[in-house]
Amino acid sequence: MKNIKLTITYDGSNYHGWQVQKDKKTIQGTIELQLKKITGEKIRLIGSGRTDAGVHALNQVANFKTDSDLIPLQIQKALNSLLPEDIYIKSAEYVPLEFHARYMAKSKTYEYRILNRQEPNIFQRKYHWHVIPKLDIERMRSALSLLKGTHDFSSFMSAGSSIKDPIRTIFKIELYKDNDLLKVIIEANGFLRYMVRNIIGTVVQVGYGKISLNEFKNIFAARDRRLAGKKAPAKGLFLVKVRY
Amino acid sequence: MKNIKLTITYDGSNYHGWQVQKDKKTIQGTIELQLKKITGEKIRLIGSGRTDAGVHALNQVANFKTDSDLIPLQIQKALNSLLPEDIYIKSAEYVPLEFHARYMAKSKTYEYRILNRQEPNIFQRKYHWHVIPKLDIERMRSALSLLKGTHDFSSFMSAGSSIKDPIRTIFKIELYKDNDLLKVIIEANGFLRYMVRNIIGTVVQVGYGKISLNEFKNIFAARDRRLAGKKAPAKGLFLVKVRY
Repeated sequence: MKNIKLTITYDGSNYHGWQVQKDKKTIQGTIELQLKKITGEKIRLIGSGRTDAGVHALNQVANFKTDSDLIPLQIQKALNSLLPEDIYIKSAEYVPLEFHARYMAKSKTYEYRILNRQEPNIFQRKYHWHVIPKLDIERMRSALSLLKGTHDFSSFMSAGSSIKDPIRTIFKIELYKDNDLLKVIIEANGFLRYMVRNIIGTVVQVGYGKISLNEFKNIFAARDRRLAGKKAPAKGLFLVKVRY
Repeated sequence: MKNIKLTITYDGSNYHGWQVQKDKKTIQGTIELQLKKITGEKIRLIGSGRTDAGVHALNQVANFKTDSDLIPLQIQKALNSLLPEDIYIKSAEYVPLEFHARYMAKSKTYEYRILNRQEPNIFQRKYHWHVIPKLDIERMRSALSLLKGTHDFSSFMSAGSSIKDPIRTIFKIELYKDNDLLKVIIEANGFLRYMVRNIIGTVVQVGYGKISLNEFKNIFAARDRRLAGKKAPAKGLFLVKVRY
């Protein structure tokens, strides 16, 4: 028995997210199907976490156990020749049997991309959120910086979810601006469902002045999902790194 | 009667090219359909030239005549609200009645994008040609520079086409390299069908050493389409500018 770790990039536009769902095309399901063909075994691929429908990944990490004699490079090449062009295996390597892509993740980093100008960029339309009103970058940075550290993120969790522990630690949260393209990078020890998209949706309202910085503070402190802004669209979100 | 000029950007991935074809989705047909709704007239849109299936445009130019009282900005806004997200009208303006987008074009500039590395960029997969063998940029530049000026381009025209005048003038032909991304920019007074893609397909073979520079010279001089390389895929090609 061997344990193999994959690093995967995918364009989530045409998938119902990472996790296997009956009768729906998912990233996990698509890769598992090809792994079965390659190894002849029924493979269960363990991802570092789910990504939602339409969310992309630059470096998703997953592992699976197999008795196949194929070495990781052979598996990587076979997968890349069989997978559709919107999923690509960047690397495959042996890891100790106890490695578990989800339980052992120490942090994950997400990036959210916003195009802030009048004119759309039609070629990148599936990879950012197009926001037309002029955003105040410094005000957004002030709001984002409040989230750094260990907090109760109930205000930014998925509506209607009842999670036992809404405490997460954000290690890093930065907003970069490159001409009209804004990138928010968030590294945390874990994320509640829709947490990044709820944060971005609310911070963008801060950026165009619909919510003041003080109101943002109150929303965060209230630990009540109903106060925050509408969640940002999935297509701007990328899982960029998983740290072990 | 007014004459209105449109500057249009489109992602050609999901279209059978610019020109109207029966029962096929085309850029021209898609825009004409919306112009008819907006003006109530049957509009014939005159493009600067056709682009083939899968080819993109950053600034295609087209004009149409109308008796509508709508000003260009209203037409632009109405079109952008009705058109699908892979076509965008960048500007609309009145031009003299005698302006004709095809006959009056003095030059057109195309750009061809090549990703030259092992790993694909899945997010840009519809906007470049992914070439894995290492390309010799200087050798490619030498080949391209031979094409500058006024020549018979029969060697690079569409297979089987019988054009009366295969003479064209290339004003500018440059290869730019930005990390792994190569861009070939060609400005000419006109292009034969598939000319850019045939040039690129052949020059890429020069780049990885399948064709020597001397052989390239002979292919160009032979004025025989059968000698040149396979044409490069449509998806790497962009119409970037039309000059009047």
